[in-house]
Amino acid sequence: MTEPSRFDAPLPGLRIGNPIDDVATPALLIDLDLFEHNLALAASLVASHGVSLRPHAKAHKCATIAQRQIAAGAVGVCCQKLAEAFALAGAGVTDIHLSNELADARKATLAAQLAAQVKLSVCVDHAESVRQLGLAAAGAGSRIDLLVEVDIGQNRCGVSTVEAMLALVDEIARHPSLSFRGLQAYHGGLQHVHAWQQRLELAQQSAARAAHFVAALEQRGLRGLTVTGGGTGSIEFDVASGVFTEIQAGSYALMDRQYGELEWRDSFRPAHALHLSATIMSTPAADRVVCDAGLKSLTVDAGLPALARDRNAPALHGWDYAVANDEHGILRRAPRHSAREASHEAPHEAPAWGSQLRLIPGHVDPTVNLHDAYVCHRGGRVEAVWPIEARGMAW
Amino acid sequence: MTEPSRFDAPLPGLRIGNPIDDVATPALLIDLDLFEHNLALAASLVASHGVSLRPHAKAHKCATIAQRQIAAGAVGVCCQKLAEAFALAGAGVTDIHLSNELADARKATLAAQLAAQVKLSVCVDHAESVRQLGLAAAGAGSRIDLLVEVDIGQNRCGVSTVEAMLALVDEIARHPSLSFRGLQAYHGGLQHVHAWQQRLELAQQSAARAAHFVAALEQRGLRGLTVTGGGTGSIEFDVASGVFTEIQAGSYALMDRQYGELEWRDSFRPAHALHLSATIMSTPAADRVVCDAGLKSLTVDAGLPALARDRNAPALHGWDYAVANDEHGILRRAPRHSAREASHEAPHEAPAWGSQLRLIPGHVDPTVNLHDAYVCHRGGRVEAVWPIEARGMAW
Repeated sequence: MTEPSRFDAPLPGLRIGNPIDDVATPALLIDLDLFEHNLALAASLVASHGVSLRPHAKAHKCATIAQRQIAAGAVGVCCQKLAEAFALAGAGVTDIHLSNELADARKATLAAQLAAQVKLSVCVDHAESVRQLGLAAAGAGSRIDLLVEVDIGQNRCGVSTVEAMLALVDEIARHPSLSFRGLQAYHGGLQHVHAWQQRLELAQQSAARAAHFVAALEQRGLRGLTVTGGGTGSIEFDVASGVFTEIQAGSYALMDRQYGELEWRDSFRPAHALHLSATIMSTPAADRVVCDAGLKSLTVDAGLPALARDRNAPALHGWDYAVANDEHGILRRAPRHSAREASHEAPHEAPAWGSQLRLIPGHVDPTVNLHDAYVCHRGGRVEAVWPIEARGMAW
Repeated sequence: MTEPSRFDAPLPGLRIGNPIDDVATPALLIDLDLFEHNLALAASLVASHGVSLRPHAKAHKCATIAQRQIAAGAVGVCCQKLAEAFALAGAGVTDIHLSNELADARKATLAAQLAAQVKLSVCVDHAESVRQLGLAAAGAGSRIDLLVEVDIGQNRCGVSTVEAMLALVDEIARHPSLSFRGLQAYHGGLQHVHAWQQRLELAQQSAARAAHFVAALEQRGLRGLTVTGGGTGSIEFDVASGVFTEIQAGSYALMDRQYGELEWRDSFRPAHALHLSATIMSTPAADRVVCDAGLKSLTVDAGLPALARDRNAPALHGWDYAVANDEHGILRRAPRHSAREASHEAPHEAPAWGSQLRLIPGHVDPTVNLHDAYVCHRGGRVEAVWPIEARGMAW
């Protein structure tokens, strides 16, 4: 423990049991009822299809959430970066799949050390990475499970031919410190396709591509392998694919505007459990007010945040978050949808100076990566503060 | 000091004196020669016009950089958030202007406490904020200097009429714990206007608007006031305006792609001192390679990063950073500019698996806010590691 200095300034109002509206802004909030609903929803979906859930921790970067997901039936979590895996392992997570490639011998050495402490698997798509990991695990006296990443339409990492996949399987077999465990087959591009039917069809095409690689391994006598992939936008199709043994969805636990705006059917529709609180800090004009949350509190790579208009939100009808500056969000009157609206409705009242609002971030993953903790609430009161241990763990 | 745990994993290769290319990626790098060049450039520009420089610390969030700027002649720094001011004050910065409004009585109380420890000024554009600060300073036995923010074209915060400005000046005068010190007049919108001549004209228009407010104060007998504003894109016009007494430029110290692409004249042209290092971690296709730096290491609110092609960068001609995913950057072959090029040049070689590159982030402020430290280098070697104390200080 460091001594508190005369410059320590904890977030005003942040105390367990306080009304959530008393917490100063901006703060990243989790509605625990909705979060638990989302966890139960995904757990029940995968269980009903006999597949495993390995939620992606890149979407929350929080050991407490990882442990909650595991308590709800998940077999472990995914991490996207080695530093992220170290941060979560240090906070007690014991089963991690690194769903990404390493291209640095020193990172391979660290992965081998981590594999001596927790159950660790790593993706590969290049023979040199296999050799680095094999050497590192031999040196550390550990064993690393490897999954070959295959490209099923994402056009990012991963091998795209059966021959390239088999060459890597052969390379892995040359290293007694490595075990070939199966395939990673992830298609990020289809996750945000708006129309449910189109998403279904693309997910089926991707699953068919994955099945093509699996068939080639089965011809070699390799069976009972892990096939890991899938995401929040395709989970209901992935569980039914007959190909995936393990689903990597991450955003479902907290959700964001981007996922919330997809067309969903009732089979799977996670709730917005994550909000960013903000305060109206300037009311300079009748058609423009300014809040204290901008690009340092949320990211706009997937578009602007939405104003929450649910049980967590005050009435802010008729206004939109229109511009994100570094530390400011400019709210403007939303355009009227019809002349009838314009002539029959009184203009919506402007949000009051000093009043709070709740924003639904456009994209959960990079937004979470800006914050050090979640302020978790239930029944209108602060119930817990969860550190975001893997925030900023970028390597 | 906490005991190192078995899960501690420092960034591989990060040791003072090591070759900078040995530091694992992604890492946020400062070229110290270029950084010092930028500091000297701005210091000399303001000195030659007899105005003060109060660099904006929101652009670097680092006490060491703030101290370097002050050592180079700056009168203090600006912060945009109270938590940011606390973080820098805690690291030894003693003169801070909070260039933003507060709309929370508890924040006013904290500001009053901070004003008892360091020289602090705060912006206001609402009478209730003045009252909160007046009450808080009276309670803390401190004195807070206030600047009224006036809108000179930014259309964000700030009063837009002389009457509203004077009403706030009158309100401030009612509080013995407050002092009216002058105006903040900032126009962010003109900072990134590409053409030098157009930027000049807009800066002159903005300065004329600021002068209009100043004249009304002078009519009241209020003279010798601070007029603070300006930015990296307009600094050379602001220093010569005859209106601004203090310039708030921030990005000039490190720079970014957005500012670098403006049309500059030789009078003021800061250098790219900031880079994000990255590693080619996957080479799946002849026209596509993938690096390990995406939206968790840089932001794209002002566009994609550029590949550095200077003394800090390896030869990566003919390739662009084309897509930013959460943890990946996809590089593609840049389009040829002419048929002549296409027919006469051999295709540029693809970057090698495991090789490093240097990216110039699109927008310095939110990118810096993702990182915990700068890795500072000179002559190809790590010279220092500077913590980014105010990272994530969003309230």
